[in-house]
Amino acid sequence: MTDRNGDSDPYQSLAESVRRLIDVTIRTEAGAAAVAAAKANVDRAVEELSADLMPGSFGVRPIVDEQPPASGNVLIGVRNPVAPPLVIRRGADGAVFTEVTLGAAYEGPPGHVHGGVCALILDHVLGATAHQPGRPAYTGTLTLRYLRGTPLGPVRVEAHVDRIDGLKTFARGHIADSGGITVTAEGVFIFPKAAKERDDDRTR
Amino acid sequence: MTDRNGDSDPYQSLAESVRRLIDVTIRTEAGAAAVAAAKANVDRAVEELSADLMPGSFGVRPIVDEQPPASGNVLIGVRNPVAPPLVIRRGADGAVFTEVTLGAAYEGPPGHVHGGVCALILDHVLGATAHQPGRPAYTGTLTLRYLRGTPLGPVRVEAHVDRIDGLKTFARGHIADSGGITVTAEGVFIFPKAAKERDDDRTR
Repeated sequence: MTDRNGDSDPYQSLAESVRRLIDVTIRTEAGAAAVAAAKANVDRAVEELSADLMPGSFGVRPIVDEQPPASGNVLIGVRNPVAPPLVIRRGADGAVFTEVTLGAAYEGPPGHVHGGVCALILDHVLGATAHQPGRPAYTGTLTLRYLRGTPLGPVRVEAHVDRIDGLKTFARGHIADSGGITVTAEGVFIFPKAAKERDDDRTR
Repeated sequence: MTDRNGDSDPYQSLAESVRRLIDVTIRTEAGAAAVAAAKANVDRAVEELSADLMPGSFGVRPIVDEQPPASGNVLIGVRNPVAPPLVIRRGADGAVFTEVTLGAAYEGPPGHVHGGVCALILDHVLGATAHQPGRPAYTGTLTLRYLRGTPLGPVRVEAHVDRIDGLKTFARGHIADSGGITVTAEGVFIFPKAAKERDDDRTR
């Protein structure tokens, strides 16, 4: 990733290298000596980065040096090596989708995405369609239906708002591979009452 | 982790170092020069480990050099740096539980575990109680109910089989922090028909 000046963001570049490291840590067949040498390099990197750490987690920060505010997020965080990271695209109709390739790091059954990873991604993508600007929505319930296993590799994830009823937004979505839908999801997302009361013109 | 001889498994030790690296990659406030130096060390480690890679993902392998077969699994894999890793404990009654501390890598809302990570963990722990030795169970449906946000930090996850009806095992579970339950889950796990027919004495 590059900023407006075409320079790489050092934190994002680092996270991209750590994503590659996660993959080869799982998949390496290198012998004990090579693995020990690699570990020594990893430990050096940990020491260099630990010289100055923020307390606790990343949270959501004001944009500094163009780092996106949710950079630490487990799914969309460009600084979080656990995140693929997802890039959520929003259509004109409010529906959202994302395309992502899920590799060895997300494995459950051999050669397949862990069913719980499908749940993790669907929770986020359904939330992204329910969550409107200035109208944060929190997951109330989420129901997943597994039609078949999701092979590791490229998938497409889609979600849309089915209906809105007072404080509740009902969203639907699915994960699909080239052969069709593998997992469907329905979620009820709650618009916190305090936020609604602030917005509401009516006196209660 | 150590094997029976008290020697560290090099792959597990490496994964433990990479877990620390993931955390500090998210949390570092080090400047661009230190981050670039750390990235160079990470890239060296990637190169060392990439000299000999298995094709594709880890899968489930026969035990070699005492590496557990699901070492690549995203939740329990000791070789997978994305995995906390969970250690599932099984009670005499078939109920299961695990205790784990979830740090910055699993963040969604600021200071809180991503709701989808709760779903990921509950899918696995409910599956672990439904899955009996020689009787693999696959997730059919999973329903999560979010009572409140789950703060980052230590959590306890429990699950038990509620009832078994033919090919279906109904499991229930929850995640709790020190203040009580934050998310509940119900899952229907399917015992594949082929496996049942092999076991069944009755002619169909």
